[in-house]
Amino acid sequence: MRVNKVQELWEKSQTVIGGWLTIPSGFSAEIMAHQDWDVLTIDMQHGLVDASALVPMLTAISTTNVIPFVRVPWLEAGIIMKVLDAGSYGVICPMINTREDAERFVSYCRYAPQGTRSFGPSRAVLYAGEDYAQHANSTVLTFAMIETRQALDNLEDIVSVKGLDAVFVGPSDLGLSLGYVPGNFEEPVLNEAIETILKTAQSQGIRAGIYTLTPEFARRMIELGFDFVVISSDARLMVTQAQKILSELRL
Amino acid sequence: MRVNKVQELWEKSQTVIGGWLTIPSGFSAEIMAHQDWDVLTIDMQHGLVDASALVPMLTAISTTNVIPFVRVPWLEAGIIMKVLDAGSYGVICPMINTREDAERFVSYCRYAPQGTRSFGPSRAVLYAGEDYAQHANSTVLTFAMIETRQALDNLEDIVSVKGLDAVFVGPSDLGLSLGYVPGNFEEPVLNEAIETILKTAQSQGIRAGIYTLTPEFARRMIELGFDFVVISSDARLMVTQAQKILSELRL
Amino acid sequence: MRVNKVQELWEKSQTVIGGWLTIPSGFSAEIMAHQDWDVLTIDMQHGLVDASALVPMLTAISTTNVIPFVRVPWLEAGIIMKVLDAGSYGVICPMINTREDAERFVSYCRYAPQGTRSFGPSRAVLYAGEDYAQHANSTVLTFAMIETRQALDNLEDIVSVKGLDAVFVGPSDLGLSLGYVPGNFEEPVLNEAIETILKTAQSQGIRAGIYTLTPEFARRMIELGFDFVVISSDARLMVTQAQKILSELRL
Amino acid sequence: MRVNKVQELWEKSQTVIGGWLTIPSGFSAEIMAHQDWDVLTIDMQHGLVDASALVPMLTAISTTNVIPFVRVPWLEAGIIMKVLDAGSYGVICPMINTREDAERFVSYCRYAPQGTRSFGPSRAVLYAGEDYAQHANSTVLTFAMIETRQALDNLEDIVSVKGLDAVFVGPSDLGLSLGYVPGNFEEPVLNEAIETILKTAQSQGIRAGIYTLTPEFARRMIELGFDFVVISSDARLMVTQAQKILSELRL
Amino acid sequence: MRVNKVQELWEKSQTVIGGWLTIPSGFSAEIMAHQDWDVLTIDMQHGLVDASALVPMLTAISTTNVIPFVRVPWLEAGIIMKVLDAGSYGVICPMINTREDAERFVSYCRYAPQGTRSFGPSRAVLYAGEDYAQHANSTVLTFAMIETRQALDNLEDIVSVKGLDAVFVGPSDLGLSLGYVPGNFEEPVLNEAIETILKTAQSQGIRAGIYTLTPEFARRMIELGFDFVVISSDARLMVTQAQKILSELRL
Amino acid sequence: MRVNKVQELWEKSQTVIGGWLTIPSGFSAEIMAHQDWDVLTIDMQHGLVDASALVPMLTAISTTNVIPFVRVPWLEAGIIMKVLDAGSYGVICPMINTREDAERFVSYCRYAPQGTRSFGPSRAVLYAGEDYAQHANSTVLTFAMIETRQALDNLEDIVSVKGLDAVFVGPSDLGLSLGYVPGNFEEPVLNEAIETILKTAQSQGIRAGIYTLTPEFARRMIELGFDFVVISSDARLMVTQAQKILSELRL
Repeated sequence: MRVNKVQELWEKSQTVIGGWLTIPSGFSAEIMAHQDWDVLTIDMQHGLVDASALVPMLTAISTTNVIPFVRVPWLEAGIIMKVLDAGSYGVICPMINTREDAERFVSYCRYAPQGTRSFGPSRAVLYAGEDYAQHANSTVLTFAMIETRQALDNLEDIVSVKGLDAVFVGPSDLGLSLGYVPGNFEEPVLNEAIETILKTAQSQGIRAGIYTLTPEFARRMIELGFDFVVISSDARLMVTQAQKILSELRL
Repeated sequence: MRVNKVQELWEKSQTVIGGWLTIPSGFSAEIMAHQDWDVLTIDMQHGLVDASALVPMLTAISTTNVIPFVRVPWLEAGIIMKVLDAGSYGVICPMINTREDAERFVSYCRYAPQGTRSFGPSRAVLYAGEDYAQHANSTVLTFAMIETRQALDNLEDIVSVKGLDAVFVGPSDLGLSLGYVPGNFEEPVLNEAIETILKTAQSQGIRAGIYTLTPEFARRMIELGFDFVVISSDARLMVTQAQKILSELRL
Repeated sequence: MRVNKVQELWEKSQTVIGGWLTIPSGFSAEIMAHQDWDVLTIDMQHGLVDASALVPMLTAISTTNVIPFVRVPWLEAGIIMKVLDAGSYGVICPMINTREDAERFVSYCRYAPQGTRSFGPSRAVLYAGEDYAQHANSTVLTFAMIETRQALDNLEDIVSVKGLDAVFVGPSDLGLSLGYVPGNFEEPVLNEAIETILKTAQSQGIRAGIYTLTPEFARRMIELGFDFVVISSDARLMVTQAQKILSELRL
Repeated sequence: MRVNKVQELWEKSQTVIGGWLTIPSGFSAEIMAHQDWDVLTIDMQHGLVDASALVPMLTAISTTNVIPFVRVPWLEAGIIMKVLDAGSYGVICPMINTREDAERFVSYCRYAPQGTRSFGPSRAVLYAGEDYAQHANSTVLTFAMIETRQALDNLEDIVSVKGLDAVFVGPSDLGLSLGYVPGNFEEPVLNEAIETILKTAQSQGIRAGIYTLTPEFARRMIELGFDFVVISSDARLMVTQAQKILSELRL
Repeated sequence: MRVNKVQELWEKSQTVIGGWLTIPSGFSAEIMAHQDWDVLTIDMQHGLVDASALVPMLTAISTTNVIPFVRVPWLEAGIIMKVLDAGSYGVICPMINTREDAERFVSYCRYAPQGTRSFGPSRAVLYAGEDYAQHANSTVLTFAMIETRQALDNLEDIVSVKGLDAVFVGPSDLGLSLGYVPGNFEEPVLNEAIETILKTAQSQGIRAGIYTLTPEFARRMIELGFDFVVISSDARLMVTQAQKILSELRL
Repeated sequence: MRVNKVQELWEKSQTVIGGWLTIPSGFSAEIMAHQDWDVLTIDMQHGLVDASALVPMLTAISTTNVIPFVRVPWLEAGIIMKVLDAGSYGVICPMINTREDAERFVSYCRYAPQGTRSFGPSRAVLYAGEDYAQHANSTVLTFAMIETRQALDNLEDIVSVKGLDAVFVGPSDLGLSLGYVPGNFEEPVLNEAIETILKTAQSQGIRAGIYTLTPEFARRMIELGFDFVVISSDARLMVTQAQKILSELRL
């Protein structure tokens, strides 16, 4: 089975740098996959990506060595198993708030006896190889999003669920849940929570990732010790550069 | 944030007149949006609209002043949050039968602290404006469909759920649940139930909408005092006029 | 090979009644195919139908006995042969202005030795039967649109092209070419031209069709003797009925 | 209402032979529908078929007499009702492990008073006829997939659920759950389980179907008495023949 | 008819600033349309945009005040008329090398008597208004691309074609035709050619546009007096910003 | 630039074995690309592949080492340049009947000074590498289809066109043009013509390819000395195997 480069990088203690895909287009995904990302996450939750765009985007990423992840819309078995069958090497699941949420999530991602994933890796065998079934349980990564006060309260319970590979911080929702405006990443309480999540994950021996929105925030999180840092999305990159050029030209 | 014209019309005590979209096409939606509707509801439940058709249809409506609503397929968090992120200004949720159903529904539609909606309004900010996050909770409307005997039994419980803006009557399913053939809207028991729903909503200070299938039924519901009356769908309009012309020509 | 019902109707001296499809949707096409049309023409010229919508629409029509025609965007070999391979039983080609135009058009629609159509009826054999190749030349109908002053000048030349089955009048373009506003079908000069086209076709033993926009105009053309009369489009049916209902309700 | 040919074949004690569709294409589905299958099942679980491909594929099958089934991604009400409204004549639901699962599944597929299916058969009436609502409950077939050890344990409970028409064995997942590698269909324990499922279904007077992967396995299951045997998928047929031809040519 | 803002800006002697769309996605187009462009050109030639993506992209732009242009794949009547019917307010046609090319191009874009455009502005009336037919000839802009040595030789002939609104320089192809590597914009011979084109257009009283690839080149062209300057494409913006961020982070 | 494996195989005097894609699906293409083909040709002429399916299919092939070719619908510049920009490494053009046809075809495929291809290899640079522009003229292969009596008459003229890499025989059309039923490949006159084409190509030092429909015919053509032999299509493979299995089972 094709190795999961993310695991290799982690074994070498390197931070995994990720991009984020919200535009439902294989061409856009292929362009992004030619940049220097380790991972590209297709966002089926807040991105405009639906199931019909998923496969062309995964295929486009598969033309390169970038590892494809998918953020699923919700903790729903149907779509989680579908993105795995389509060849995703990591699943980021939003709103994991309790131990039971985490257990269900892991269960959907693992074949028996570790879980209840149904067998039929149609495109995954094309991407990963014919021995996919034997190695999928230990190669495909599971990320539980920690993004509410409730999740913080249940953090120890969540990170100790067997088969969970990592937590992933959604700072906007976490801030919102703590009472702050989305996009405000300066609040000490929020930053404290982020550190707590990182340390709790580390204490349990699992990995921690985070979504950031500015290079500065990203750099801070890398320094803090996060294993997986998402830097920016296709749409944000485009908008940032457009605004820069146009504001200069329009002077 | 762009105002929700439906709220403005209601403040002026006007009945909101709605059309219904079942054909999965942005062009068809744009044509409908140039007719004199206040609201167009994209039907993801019984219409043939899937997630890949949703955004082109919402975009097409956004070229006009018609307000876009979506009827979601079911009380499932993933799709409800997706239609909100895509810019829908109202969500009609089928089969709300209990207080708990209604609470979950409202929770999925509201950001913390009122609910558990996850943050990431990708297209909604394009449609509504950059201040969407601040005003979404009070601008986006929630409609609980009352369409079973069980819902009738729990009506008081449902309408008193905080954050629910309106009920919406599905007369075919309601009739079916009461033992009548779908499309038969003459049964006194059914009509009594419809009036009960309207009055119960009014007594709680929330709004009431209804799907109708003939102009006559629509007019009756307007006179009865419904706040939102859906008149017809794209498909039904097309079929009605085709049958009229062809039956005359084929004589 | 499946018979072309249009030919059967013509042999019985019946006027063929057609609908027109401009919405790029298989569902919309299937709804229309359940109305009482003899023929449905998919409009790839002015309709919003592109090549990716063509096959689902043809397939939808194939679930019924309605005969599928396609109006192609232009006298271009690539697309004409593509709609034939996809199973269209008639091709309406815009802007046939000269004998040479008509000859090229017919040639693209016929296998050797009558023409230069390339062989490969991928979906046509599914729709028509395995013996498609033997009978296609005499079953698939060719309609040359007569819609300019130049075409009127060359009318005799055009209608006498061997293998051309029919002319088809585009009254909007014809009116425009004669100096009138599109949609004005009352001008005597235009109506005279329409009659001339019909008679010239009849004199040569080929058929004549016309696009109409109102039931009144349609009825007039049927009485005049046209063999194929297109009554209305999906979009126009929808709009007409919407305007009727809404104008009554909004009083 | 159009009869369900599967029921007719069963009444004549014939084994229903099925093909399986995993390629999201109406053209591919139409080609398959011209082969000698009784049923074609569109696989929305492990196949690459999403909601936007579903309707073109159902439409393609509807051009023939082959009966369309759909395997849904999961026991989720939204998608189950959607495939029914789109005109599927059978639903195969994965991972039915308990009596409660089976009851929910049946309930989603039946109109009141037998179930909780919501009314709005948009495309189903086109395929089945205007009287769909009256006959759907007794015409549309429900298949509960038995594919885990837990389901085996609860088998009697599951097969006795009222309104369930059949069980359907997923031998790969069942084998996996029993501790074997997927694709190994020789294990006596697995084969015993398969026989048990068949007999338990028969004892309760319901039908039994199974997915097979080789003609040999298929023949064995037909002889064993299965009522519905799925032979192969579009993708597997293509691959098998490609490998055969290429291995001969490459010698 | 909705005014063409480009004409207004030109009357005020302002340079029109354009963006370029190569990603076939309505969402991507809508994001771009919220930036400070005057015009967005959908590139159907070298972009990955096909006919099925065209309408969603035009619709997305129509939700804003940005003016939509389309670069067509080639001087082919079918597609040129299709983008006009879909509501494009400007057509950029590649490889206009002779007077006859320019005449055919203009003819395809104008209704009789100025040209041979066929009548049927299906979506254009939705975007522009019901009086589209009366004003389209003077509102929709025609840009002839000058990008070969042959075109330079025939420049006077081309710019004097009646009804041509502007020339548009393709510097990559022009450089290639003059013997330079694409992307090299420093060659004096190339820059001289560019100035010649601008001056020849000005001498004839028509406008001149140019595609640029860097802000520096763009600024130079604005200062030179070009009326329409395309700054960058969606893909290039995304790549530029991704490379900037990643190269900083990867240090 | 990524090498064209076809050229490498030819240098080693090996016959290039090709598959053919008619199903418009990236998944289907990816499955085929995992079989032992040297080349896969996407058929945009008689296949059901439109422009919106082209890129996902090319991308799917790009995940493997199989070389992607495209058969274009016709000798039309717009689509030929589009398939090249999308990354096709070979273009098969139907109905090249004269020297002038062949010259136009080659010209569309080559950058100046060898031809008139317009510059903008959007996806080609992703597939082939950033130095695509420098090497494309000598890496991308041009195949002129010889499939009419007229082409036979002009054969010497056609094969001597500079920049043409190969001829490609379409035996069905060629047979039809010579007066035989498509699919009959036994006629001596036809086989003589096929040999003439091969020898004429060889005499001029260019390559020769052929489409075959049965393994037997393929083997015969390989032995005859053809450089490129297309064995079968996705659809034909699927049908052949389905018929084999079903005819055995239905006994």
